[in-house]
Amino acid sequence: MTHPDTIIINDVGPRDGLQNQPKILTVDERTQLIQALIEAGVPAIEVGAFVSPKAVPAMAGAAELFANVNNSDTDFSALIPNAKGFELGVAAGVPTLSLVVATSNTMNEKNIRMTNAQALDVCRTVIAMSQDTAATVQVYVATAFECPFEGIIAAQQTIDMCNTLFDMGANAIVVADTIGAANPKQVSALMSELVSQHSTDKLSCHFHDTRAMGLADVYAAIEAGIRRFDASIAGLGGCPFAPGASGNVATEDVVMLAEQMGFHTGIDMPALLRASDLAIQLTGSARGGNARAWLDRKFQHNNHSTSQGSKP
Amino acid sequence: MTHPDTIIINDVGPRDGLQNQPKILTVDERTQLIQALIEAGVPAIEVGAFVSPKAVPAMAGAAELFANVNNSDTDFSALIPNAKGFELGVAAGVPTLSLVVATSNTMNEKNIRMTNAQALDVCRTVIAMSQDTAATVQVYVATAFECPFEGIIAAQQTIDMCNTLFDMGANAIVVADTIGAANPKQVSALMSELVSQHSTDKLSCHFHDTRAMGLADVYAAIEAGIRRFDASIAGLGGCPFAPGASGNVATEDVVMLAEQMGFHTGIDMPALLRASDLAIQLTGSARGGNARAWLDRKFQHNNHSTSQGSKP
Repeated sequence: MTHPDTIIINDVGPRDGLQNQPKILTVDERTQLIQALIEAGVPAIEVGAFVSPKAVPAMAGAAELFANVNNSDTDFSALIPNAKGFELGVAAGVPTLSLVVATSNTMNEKNIRMTNAQALDVCRTVIAMSQDTAATVQVYVATAFECPFEGIIAAQQTIDMCNTLFDMGANAIVVADTIGAANPKQVSALMSELVSQHSTDKLSCHFHDTRAMGLADVYAAIEAGIRRFDASIAGLGGCPFAPGASGNVATEDVVMLAEQMGFHTGIDMPALLRASDLAIQLTGSARGGNARAWLDRKFQHNNHSTSQGSKP
Repeated sequence: MTHPDTIIINDVGPRDGLQNQPKILTVDERTQLIQALIEAGVPAIEVGAFVSPKAVPAMAGAAELFANVNNSDTDFSALIPNAKGFELGVAAGVPTLSLVVATSNTMNEKNIRMTNAQALDVCRTVIAMSQDTAATVQVYVATAFECPFEGIIAAQQTIDMCNTLFDMGANAIVVADTIGAANPKQVSALMSELVSQHSTDKLSCHFHDTRAMGLADVYAAIEAGIRRFDASIAGLGGCPFAPGASGNVATEDVVMLAEQMGFHTGIDMPALLRASDLAIQLTGSARGGNARAWLDRKFQHNNHSTSQGSKP
């Protein structure tokens, strides 16, 4: 079990972040970014996606990328859309493979062209396949709080989907506020209920900062007992299929919040700020965390590619 | 008593905000800004300060300014440093006058050139004077969580100071995170303890967004029972005497958080966004709230003087 004083950060910048910004990075550039995150001690990293390179050119070369960065100390994961993606991920040796299913039919149809039932069937198939492998399957429950098409999602709808997925044998679930709509009161209610039913080792949260409530949501989830969080270096990310979505909560902001609250993340902030600079430099669009100006002063980090004055 | 579903916002932009940014606004410009806040339905506004215009030219003309904006529907306040300021405020007819005392000796000495004991003596004198007037005296307890010179302030130290001030007869206390250092866990602990000892009608919180934890702190205080918050239109503000302080939490962000959580603020967001535009336009340095991009889309507010692209 995770030590109660530890917060585990999974940096999704190399996948969720890079997939949702305009510039396509090469495998070498993505390798550099992941290496910078590893050097900062980030314990878990979403490295890429096993998807069609024609459909998602930003994610091309996932197997090659993973071979470049693989080590036994980091908990690597990759996104997979289906059974074929699972096979590719397993062949590449990625230890954790992530499926996505939204709480709402409309979002599933717009995002992955499946109904809820079809999307859950894919999960069932892949989880069954994983029983014969060393791979762990986790599932992102997307639009867990609000759907851009269907509006507020009742907590019970999300809880029911989580229970269905755990019943199927999902190893873990990431509750994802895909469009950055959740307020901390919603987060507190939903995550408290999930924590009462499932081990916190199997639950994680994924927030966006669209409505500036990202860190408030992280805090509310921590209070509910959650100890695993997605975050994206330099706040890279968004969701092209979800109108109104903007960047993920920035890794540097979440690490700062956790450490200020007395939790341990095992992450070295000066090295993380260098990784944030690299993300900004490689993409040209990342903003850097909201706390960057203070973090730069605190850690005397001056040699970075952004500043308050040039922040977009 | 405040209705439990109501959050009362006190906009401190015209005082705390304008005093702590480089450009000096005229009385007419400040009148415009306050009128814009009144039009948006902001229930409480800190209009100015009765201080030496030589020492603080940005706050000159407080009596004239107050005469321009006075109405019976808004809860106006003004900062006063001492008994002379109190007399000037009362003569101008300002209903609520605010004193400031920091938890730490060093901060009091640097900020107002008094020891803690001297600062508390000023409070005692002014509160006694107020007994013969219709004026209400509230006290800001500054550096309530951390002092830039003395570090973390023990919660008990802040609680003791609040109790001393309430014992003197202070009508209300504003717990102020002057340098934006508080994390939501600290806020939760301190405010829960204060709420257990005093009426929430007499307690308020004042946060800065320096470390990007401003809204998380507001949420933690709401959870502790606090229903009154300072905020600054467009995130105007900071503290020139406190190294590392940056803007106050933006009124538009706090109103959004409160309304998203189901509270009523009585504030009209489109009109508030116009007030935010005006603050940005008049000062040339205000950033606008962190949620401005989303709020602009949500309220189809396009005719504003800032944008994500030009955000400093």
